[in-house]
Amino acid sequence: MWWVFVVRRGYQDTDAAPHVSVVTKLKGVSVSRAEDARRRLWDAADFSRPPQGENVLFLVTNFIVTDKQVQGTCPESPSVLDGICVEDVDCPMGNPVVHGNGIKTGKCVMFNSTHSTCEIFGWCPVENDTLPRKPLLAEAENFTLFIKNTVNFTKFNFSKGNTLQTNDPTYFKTCMYDPFFSPSCPVFRIRDMVEAAGETFGALALLGGSISVRIEWDCDLDQPAAHCQPRYSFILLDRRYNFRTASYYWDSQQQHYRSLLKLYGIRFDISVHGQAGKFGIIPAAVSFGTGIAFLGTATMICDLVLLYLDAKADFYWKEKFEEVRMGCGTTWES
Amino acid sequence: MWWVFVVRRGYQDTDAAPHVSVVTKLKGVSVSRAEDARRRLWDAADFSRPPQGENVLFLVTNFIVTDKQVQGTCPESPSVLDGICVEDVDCPMGNPVVHGNGIKTGKCVMFNSTHSTCEIFGWCPVENDTLPRKPLLAEAENFTLFIKNTVNFTKFNFSKGNTLQTNDPTYFKTCMYDPFFSPSCPVFRIRDMVEAAGETFGALALLGGSISVRIEWDCDLDQPAAHCQPRYSFILLDRRYNFRTASYYWDSQQQHYRSLLKLYGIRFDISVHGQAGKFGIIPAAVSFGTGIAFLGTATMICDLVLLYLDAKADFYWKEKFEEVRMGCGTTWES
Amino acid sequence: MWWVFVVRRGYQDTDAAPHVSVVTKLKGVSVSRAEDARRRLWDAADFSRPPQGENVLFLVTNFIVTDKQVQGTCPESPSVLDGICVEDVDCPMGNPVVHGNGIKTGKCVMFNSTHSTCEIFGWCPVENDTLPRKPLLAEAENFTLFIKNTVNFTKFNFSKGNTLQTNDPTYFKTCMYDPFFSPSCPVFRIRDMVEAAGETFGALALLGGSISVRIEWDCDLDQPAAHCQPRYSFILLDRRYNFRTASYYWDSQQQHYRSLLKLYGIRFDISVHGQAGKFGIIPAAVSFGTGIAFLGTATMICDLVLLYLDAKADFYWKEKFEEVRMGCGTTWES
Repeated sequence: MWWVFVVRRGYQDTDAAPHVSVVTKLKGVSVSRAEDARRRLWDAADFSRPPQGENVLFLVTNFIVTDKQVQGTCPESPSVLDGICVEDVDCPMGNPVVHGNGIKTGKCVMFNSTHSTCEIFGWCPVENDTLPRKPLLAEAENFTLFIKNTVNFTKFNFSKGNTLQTNDPTYFKTCMYDPFFSPSCPVFRIRDMVEAAGETFGALALLGGSISVRIEWDCDLDQPAAHCQPRYSFILLDRRYNFRTASYYWDSQQQHYRSLLKLYGIRFDISVHGQAGKFGIIPAAVSFGTGIAFLGTATMICDLVLLYLDAKADFYWKEKFEEVRMGCGTTWES
Repeated sequence: MWWVFVVRRGYQDTDAAPHVSVVTKLKGVSVSRAEDARRRLWDAADFSRPPQGENVLFLVTNFIVTDKQVQGTCPESPSVLDGICVEDVDCPMGNPVVHGNGIKTGKCVMFNSTHSTCEIFGWCPVENDTLPRKPLLAEAENFTLFIKNTVNFTKFNFSKGNTLQTNDPTYFKTCMYDPFFSPSCPVFRIRDMVEAAGETFGALALLGGSISVRIEWDCDLDQPAAHCQPRYSFILLDRRYNFRTASYYWDSQQQHYRSLLKLYGIRFDISVHGQAGKFGIIPAAVSFGTGIAFLGTATMICDLVLLYLDAKADFYWKEKFEEVRMGCGTTWES
Repeated sequence: MWWVFVVRRGYQDTDAAPHVSVVTKLKGVSVSRAEDARRRLWDAADFSRPPQGENVLFLVTNFIVTDKQVQGTCPESPSVLDGICVEDVDCPMGNPVVHGNGIKTGKCVMFNSTHSTCEIFGWCPVENDTLPRKPLLAEAENFTLFIKNTVNFTKFNFSKGNTLQTNDPTYFKTCMYDPFFSPSCPVFRIRDMVEAAGETFGALALLGGSISVRIEWDCDLDQPAAHCQPRYSFILLDRRYNFRTASYYWDSQQQHYRSLLKLYGIRFDISVHGQAGKFGIIPAAVSFGTGIAFLGTATMICDLVLLYLDAKADFYWKEKFEEVRMGCGTTWES
């Protein structure tokens, strides 16, 4: 009963489904250097997907670009099993290449000096599938993620955010989250989050990965509002993450083409769990009643055990009888 | 009591709010053939929106393209009620066309030989609204959706995924989900999902639709981890789904134009519900106590019924008295 | 007990985790007028982000365009603290500008007649940071948001939507939600939603903001299905909201450039909470039992209070004894 009443705060009315809002913003700049030694600067508008700052967000750390693909015919990539061929009959016309990039045209053609593959109709040339050995945006470890989270417990008309109420406009531009020294700063360094999830940034940056960020609110509204603070936890969910996206263009001859990007990076899933409790007369009564009932039951079980299992039952039986003669109610005192 | 304790596993501590991650990937290629007989290949980067592979994803199955729209004036579409006019006064300048495509310029102009509509300022020409009678990407029924789902019950430090732990790298490239023969394969054929939701692919592909995919984990962690397996269910939520999106370009004369796409297709909403239980001494005690209390109550109700309602109450009253004289506790034995 | 049984409907089996689907669509057209007096029409494909109509959506109300950025070197913006300099040593080569737009090249250059800033390598020219004083899409207050929400309580095989079942095809094109006069119309005017959240549209449109829309279903399936209706609530979560996004182009000299947009606007987070109850024999029995136990406990507490605390305890003790002699069961009658 003590457990239900004190630890679980059974006397409180609870609201476990707050209105929750999460707004996120990635910040940072980094230079990538392509194989042709052209360098390219990446800022937040380039490396954040989607740009809106929702609760699932993605930070590019590595990528493969296949520029200027047009619809046409070309040899399938030799890394696709179903695309390898020796002669034309291996490439039945009209069939899609299983896990490949297009529809077979019926011809078997040279891909390079060592491989022959089926000719396909599709976006040509096919995607280049050699991933850079080092993450192209290795500096992304110093980027920051700003997480603005508000919870609103409508039942108690109580609303709170994870950002410090401050009059200093530069606070959020200079602070950095640290569980001990600045737990109220909602700006997280990417590397810190990856390490809190038990991984190193370098390992995730190459092939991507997925991290779950959990914000927990457990608020006792019978206490001052300042005690109601979020707790953050970081969990590594996956060691690989990538997806493809394309931008479409028209060239001056009205040819439609696209740039295909295969993006590797870190995906953050932010979830918020909130719960608030406040003293309420009905839950207190119910909880107290149940507790008492349980206590009563406990007493009875003790009785039963003593009466039937204990070696010295004789003595207890006697006592028990006398107790009953004095009135049933007294049993509850013990 | 048996029900609460055994069926509901009342002796267990539970975690009903796991960290959840869902990563999805659509795969497949298909050729669409436009009215001008130009064929176009669609691969995953073209037909998946958004590309990131989140828990809500969309597969294009049909579409209307309105190429090369520029800002200017043109007649409103005759399918918009408020745009139809007989003379200029029907088109008050500056008013937006209700549910239309632009702002009225004040003129009533010929749309074609049979209709007159208000001239508007907007993206011109207005959207062509004739939907192809057959879905343009009818082959999308054979596309596959890979769903990678991980749940992490932090309370018990237990994590599990829906993908088979295998050393065979080709497993996920060759398997296909089947509730009986390969329930551990996380690759779902689109047609199978649509049919599990009680619809045919052809019917949904034309005008789009919305399907809810639910993954349920109900894990008894007192059992071996291999028993903790997800269950999938598919529900048809809606028989129509479409949205518009645009790509923006600059032509060589620095004119800004856009390609407007009205996309019809199947939207999948993936939701995960997880629950895990593990023996815990406190829940077991509470559950046992409540059960006993309930059992006691049941005994009392039986007593009351027997004492007051039963015709042979007399006999029972007598018995009851003697029982009381023997000690209250014995009532609980029955 | 009455409270648990009647108010909380303790006799019912409940399903609190329905399959939920939310599909949204923004509608409207508006003209913005840039500083160079060029007007531009915005329709749904332009101002909705993301276009798919998910449960988090964004309506552009104000924006800053930075056209034709290319990768190169240019002076940093003087509004970035770390970018201000007096001489070259203030700009160590290779360091990123903190909260800035690029990597320092090592030179300190004139930004304009009054400011000197570090030269950076990045997207040039840097973003123009003067926000229009009046929201550019002020007419967005009359845009409408269509919310189609379906809940499916699989436990009871019961499904319901928030849209009126009607045979009138024009109903959803002409109706407008009003809590009193048309609560079944799922078309919401933006201004009405902002005002229901306690803010004025004008105030939010300038710098953006975030509004939580909550749909609550509390259905008693022992009643006719028509009584199962959603309730909507609107809460202001934040008074600022913006993000940056970019479109990428190639010009005729194969130079890669981008148009950077900083978008301000209103973000809607739609969340659905559902619960349905239906009579079930087991919950009824458990609830009844617990209630009885509680009632019994209550009686006992009264006894204790009367026996030990009451001044006239003597009399009660006597009565109590007699009651016990008459049989324990009778205590329950009181």
